[in-house]
Amino acid sequence: MLVVKKFGGTSVGNKERIINVAKRCIEDYQKGNDVVVVLSAMGKMTDELIAKAKEINPNPSRREMDMLLTTGEQTSVSLMAMAMDALGVPAVSLNAFQVAMHTTSVYSNARIKRIDTDRIFNELEQRKIVIVTGFQGVDRFDNYTTLGRGGSDTTAVALAAALHADACEIYTDVDGVYTADPRKVPMAKKLSDITYDEMLEMATLGAGVLHNRSVELAKKHGVQLVVRSSLTTEEGTVVKENVRSRGSEISGVAGDDDAARIAILGVDDIPGVAFKIFNILARKNVNVDMILQSVGQGKNKKDISFTVKEEELDIAVKALEDNLSDGSYQDINVSSKIAKVSIIGAGLRNNFGMASRMFEALYKANVNIRMISTSEIRVTVLVNREDMEKAMIAAHEAFKM
Amino acid sequence: MLVVKKFGGTSVGNKERIINVAKRCIEDYQKGNDVVVVLSAMGKMTDELIAKAKEINPNPSRREMDMLLTTGEQTSVSLMAMAMDALGVPAVSLNAFQVAMHTTSVYSNARIKRIDTDRIFNELEQRKIVIVTGFQGVDRFDNYTTLGRGGSDTTAVALAAALHADACEIYTDVDGVYTADPRKVPMAKKLSDITYDEMLEMATLGAGVLHNRSVELAKKHGVQLVVRSSLTTEEGTVVKENVRSRGSEISGVAGDDDAARIAILGVDDIPGVAFKIFNILARKNVNVDMILQSVGQGKNKKDISFTVKEEELDIAVKALEDNLSDGSYQDINVSSKIAKVSIIGAGLRNNFGMASRMFEALYKANVNIRMISTSEIRVTVLVNREDMEKAMIAAHEAFKM
Repeated sequence: MLVVKKFGGTSVGNKERIINVAKRCIEDYQKGNDVVVVLSAMGKMTDELIAKAKEINPNPSRREMDMLLTTGEQTSVSLMAMAMDALGVPAVSLNAFQVAMHTTSVYSNARIKRIDTDRIFNELEQRKIVIVTGFQGVDRFDNYTTLGRGGSDTTAVALAAALHADACEIYTDVDGVYTADPRKVPMAKKLSDITYDEMLEMATLGAGVLHNRSVELAKKHGVQLVVRSSLTTEEGTVVKENVRSRGSEISGVAGDDDAARIAILGVDDIPGVAFKIFNILARKNVNVDMILQSVGQGKNKKDISFTVKEEELDIAVKALEDNLSDGSYQDINVSSKIAKVSIIGAGLRNNFGMASRMFEALYKANVNIRMISTSEIRVTVLVNREDMEKAMIAAHEAFKM
Repeated sequence: MLVVKKFGGTSVGNKERIINVAKRCIEDYQKGNDVVVVLSAMGKMTDELIAKAKEINPNPSRREMDMLLTTGEQTSVSLMAMAMDALGVPAVSLNAFQVAMHTTSVYSNARIKRIDTDRIFNELEQRKIVIVTGFQGVDRFDNYTTLGRGGSDTTAVALAAALHADACEIYTDVDGVYTADPRKVPMAKKLSDITYDEMLEMATLGAGVLHNRSVELAKKHGVQLVVRSSLTTEEGTVVKENVRSRGSEISGVAGDDDAARIAILGVDDIPGVAFKIFNILARKNVNVDMILQSVGQGKNKKDISFTVKEEELDIAVKALEDNLSDGSYQDINVSSKIAKVSIIGAGLRNNFGMASRMFEALYKANVNIRMISTSEIRVTVLVNREDMEKAMIAAHEAFKM
């Protein structure tokens, strides 16, 4: 069996943890498995390198930043190979050049295009554990690139796909994917499995232990993921295409308390208005979420509402006031300190009764809903921030998760 | 004009020094020159990485050690590119993969075989300053290698040769090559030039600011070197094939106080004896220097003397006592706390009167000579360690350097 195991920066943060991860990988190796390990940079190393760079150049080029940051994973993988060697198991570390991890040229946010698997298979055939730098790649001009947030997860999934691995295990500091954040919903339970689509919605809504891109890639290539703890031997959560039926139709409740709402009231009901508004915001790099358009109060008027991140609220409002002509809207109405609460589940598909069960639960909990938005497998409501946890618990209870 | 400029770890030890080096290179660039910069790892970074490795594995594999250490120069070059960019000059950093610095596979002590110059010339044509990682290479299996002590000097010389550079400047924390170590010989003077061969003898004898291998490579390819300070704008010392005649026939006096002498007395005067002795020492990795064989006191006997480093003395003596059969020698005589003093100069060639002038100077200074060894351009004497500085000063004065 060929297993890809990915460990994040916290798991390799110091000598003891490196040795712990080494032992864990060796256990698997000694069962006769081929083991490929993907590592992130140690603990805070990436942050420290960024700080060092910014001291020298407050606005460093992304090309040079990637050149600097890739030293982080190279340090982890070489130390890990030494640790395994000290434990008597042959190991070899490989960086993006050595693996030939080809990516696009988009520095700091590249996408993997192709992996040459020859070197890895060669090393595995010699019964070595192969340790690969996560997060980094090389473009066609031989420049280093990095994959952006959650990049090492993506590396692991891409490797698992390219090597046709039998398993891809993502080790984190939590022991799996929960029905809700246990810090907010004490009765949250660990899921034994979850679909790619559910995981994607969870990730997007800030509840994810996996980054979106890695889940998308896993879905695309049918790579079955296991999310588990690097500190315990518990089972973890399997992420795959279909899950066996479970007690609840809902896989989880997610909350995101970093939201503000902007409502532009009394906009002329003519073509191109939405484009104009969101183009203004895009040019300011404001991330817009949950867009709703509704019939306005005046004749031939409509209202357009949407959410933004709290810290982008002022920029967004100023950009709109500066760029929308005076007569083209009646008012801009702003609500800060609000939160999004979502229920997610493949079971929501074609079963809108689920949404109304959520609304009922919130009503009984005396939570006021400010906006509603739905996708195929998700229902999201906007609530006041102080109601977020109450709303999450109410929804969680309503679906007997 | 194409200039290769090499800066050591001290010169890039912190933010201020990196910016200082950046400015220095930019000055050259703004004169219209093509500038290639070679950097070592920052300050103590290499030592820190070695310490980190040894915590995890007291005896790490050299392959993984090189993988770890190469992160050091990559950090320096990317930060330097950012510094130049902040000063408004386009720059690009390149590591051993990107330069295609091909070496042998001898980890921790590889030799450069070939450099692909395409990438560097491409970047120079775009009027960028090109910053290359010193010390590191890549073998034909795509493994990282390092070049051993003084490796970044070697990188600079190899690049200067491959690029047909017009100048190769080695920046250090001293402002050139001196006739002697100024801490020991206060009247020591900076040399304006020195031949490759003289520099090689100086380097071997511990007085060198340049490592041997880089000087050998410069000699082989006729690369003219300039050794100068990264802190001042003084002229420095030129290292080349021939130097114009100078005041003294001697270019310098070198002292090495890390020596001990072993004399094996009364060895049978038969073939193979020397081989046997030095083979015993080679197997224990003892570095032997200054071998002398003289007629012994008994019939068909000879004495063999040589020097070793002080810290290898005990190992050497034990190895000899354990491995030489009892009757094959009369005694082993050991002198520790001795030193080597040498005069070096192309002028010594075919002029043995120089040696006697040195002996006379030492006699007048009341320094006892314990052993003598000569090469074409060097005379070395062994003296008691407490006499070393006195001997150096006496020799220095005798040749009016």
